[in-house]
Amino acid sequence: MDIRVDISRLKRDLEELGTIGRDARGGISRPSFSRADLEARQWLTDRVQNAGLELRRDGAGNIFGRLGGPGAAVMAGSHIDTVVNGGMFDGACGVLSALECLRRIKEEKLALARPLEMVSFTDEEGNLVGDFIGSRAFIGGLNREEVERGTTQIGPPLKDILAGTEFTVDSILSTGLERPKVEAYLELHIEQGPVLETEGLSIGLVDRIAGKQHRLCSFVGTASHAGATPLELRQDAFLGLAEFAVKSTQLVATHHYGSVVTIGKVGVIPGSFSIVPGRADFSLDFRSTSAETLQAMEKELLGLAEDVAATRGLSFGSKLIDATEPVIIPERLMRILKEECRGLAYPSFVLPSGAGHDAQILAAVTDIAMIFIPSIDGLSHSPQEAIDWNDLEKGANLLLHSLIHLAR
Amino acid sequence: MDIRVDISRLKRDLEELGTIGRDARGGISRPSFSRADLEARQWLTDRVQNAGLELRRDGAGNIFGRLGGPGAAVMAGSHIDTVVNGGMFDGACGVLSALECLRRIKEEKLALARPLEMVSFTDEEGNLVGDFIGSRAFIGGLNREEVERGTTQIGPPLKDILAGTEFTVDSILSTGLERPKVEAYLELHIEQGPVLETEGLSIGLVDRIAGKQHRLCSFVGTASHAGATPLELRQDAFLGLAEFAVKSTQLVATHHYGSVVTIGKVGVIPGSFSIVPGRADFSLDFRSTSAETLQAMEKELLGLAEDVAATRGLSFGSKLIDATEPVIIPERLMRILKEECRGLAYPSFVLPSGAGHDAQILAAVTDIAMIFIPSIDGLSHSPQEAIDWNDLEKGANLLLHSLIHLAR
Repeated sequence: MDIRVDISRLKRDLEELGTIGRDARGGISRPSFSRADLEARQWLTDRVQNAGLELRRDGAGNIFGRLGGPGAAVMAGSHIDTVVNGGMFDGACGVLSALECLRRIKEEKLALARPLEMVSFTDEEGNLVGDFIGSRAFIGGLNREEVERGTTQIGPPLKDILAGTEFTVDSILSTGLERPKVEAYLELHIEQGPVLETEGLSIGLVDRIAGKQHRLCSFVGTASHAGATPLELRQDAFLGLAEFAVKSTQLVATHHYGSVVTIGKVGVIPGSFSIVPGRADFSLDFRSTSAETLQAMEKELLGLAEDVAATRGLSFGSKLIDATEPVIIPERLMRILKEECRGLAYPSFVLPSGAGHDAQILAAVTDIAMIFIPSIDGLSHSPQEAIDWNDLEKGANLLLHSLIHLAR
Repeated sequence: MDIRVDISRLKRDLEELGTIGRDARGGISRPSFSRADLEARQWLTDRVQNAGLELRRDGAGNIFGRLGGPGAAVMAGSHIDTVVNGGMFDGACGVLSALECLRRIKEEKLALARPLEMVSFTDEEGNLVGDFIGSRAFIGGLNREEVERGTTQIGPPLKDILAGTEFTVDSILSTGLERPKVEAYLELHIEQGPVLETEGLSIGLVDRIAGKQHRLCSFVGTASHAGATPLELRQDAFLGLAEFAVKSTQLVATHHYGSVVTIGKVGVIPGSFSIVPGRADFSLDFRSTSAETLQAMEKELLGLAEDVAATRGLSFGSKLIDATEPVIIPERLMRILKEECRGLAYPSFVLPSGAGHDAQILAAVTDIAMIFIPSIDGLSHSPQEAIDWNDLEKGANLLLHSLIHLAR
């Protein structure tokens, strides 16, 4: 089939959306339900209606644009919220590519057996009370306690953030009840890593999405005077963390190649030039595309931390903050994407996704697949986030052909 | 000679001073020129006058109490300022022991050849613009630029802090000009470390005071997505710091036994669960009682940091914030202190001081010596700071007899 996306129109859409929430540091700050996000939602609903799609919004603020009659739809989408000082492509590429695909199918008046639906999920970035609140609400996977108790990344409590909107905690929680059947879900996304660029390729087919654990951890020792306490009499909590950081990375690199561990957040107490740290708090993020490996890593990393603590006269504690399970993309969808790649004469390259995506949440209720396009310099969550428009054109064409394949 | 301090009176003084600046967390918060410090200064000047000593205050707020005629005095003292949420013994023990010694000598009407002077130096703790501003002003060792440009630890600029007082930047800087000759300077202080307690001893004679360097350092790499960036493609600034922390401690423990290195302050940027750190800022404090070792440590530690940076694809930078030279206590004073210990039948134990003290500053203009008493659990700069009154009694008696020895 000769149908292709209109990359100029898609580019215009992305650039237009990329003016909303532009911040003083040159990035995009559009956390869900911020003023900028509300403006972006209005812009998107206008685009959906201008395209002649059937607009729907649910109680969690997810926005849908439908083409075709009733029944289980083939869906495609992503999210339009951003982290604070993020970029204009993370999420937006997937939502606006899906919109462009449905527009082209409608313009070509293709007769398809199944309905198609584009979607933009609320708060993929987890600025409110945890990652993926929109897609988790959509599949009925939220519980009241986490939504009510959760603290937001952007300051005010969730109910204050919702106060200026048509949404409430109850409308979010009741969203899963009205969930429509989904035939399949496809998501195009920037890679957010350096692999495709390193390989010199335009398209990556995701075969697995990593699961992860987020833990908040602490080593606790004894604060003491940096001059008056000999090295051998110290219980330096930061040295415990330092040893754990080095050894945990070695452990994962050696025994679980392809999995990752990250310490991204560190607080040392009391935090003075002249005082040996009595406490070191830190975040521990570890991810793997294998559920068994994830489980093994949990055991080994926490064991390592206990060993380091014991050797150094420290205590160690950790608390689970968030966990997701790895997802394997169904063989059926991998075959279809590869076939459409061949049809379009695009080289196809298979890679795992280390980042989490709404697709991973949808996997609980339908078959999902993901198309990656390269992130320039591997950057995302940054004003420097960038893409090559040729890559996006290829990715969107693959999405278009795959949607048609699934819906015909 | 049978003269002894009155430990009940000294204890009462310490407890009375310890009520001033008592904070909500049970510690003492009495940074120089705070309201609490001004109250403590008034209390101390009253005590000096009640004791019948000749009161003098200089332009840096140092408080003196003199006994005897003109000429170079034998001095003893320390400081009454504290860190925020510190304890009631650090500094105060030295000032009030000196006061008690002069009171007892006056009461006994001892005829001595030289005058005696007790002193309380301003801002030993460096809450204003760097450590030892009072003793450095006293010896004429301050320069205008550091006093004017320095940022305070307690928020407002120095001139705002001084605004409520009789002191100005100019009065502080001109203090050194009026400096009297000093025959010798003795300082009694809590150890602030665990050595005397570990040895089960009441008195330590300090033979060397460590010099130190304070540096602010950074490893800079590249922030990247914690899920999407494989371990082997990361430039993780925090891992650079972690490796440096472990290896620098090993280096000092192995090659410079007795010297210390401390990383007490750590900031990781951007500081998020899901982002590989692009930057790690940290404080580096290293100390040695040998000037040669201090120099070697500077070279080796900065070299190690550069090596770690090169291996990990990071850059490293550091800036010198503060430096003091080690001091060797003159043999003459060590002999006198040991002799008086023998006279009092106290075991004498020689140890270095890892912490810095006003005595170290005075060493530029006179002979100095220090008497340590044990810190319970090695604690200081903490509300848990504590002493055994029997230890203080012995330390103060040794100070008394050493002052008499030097002045007769």
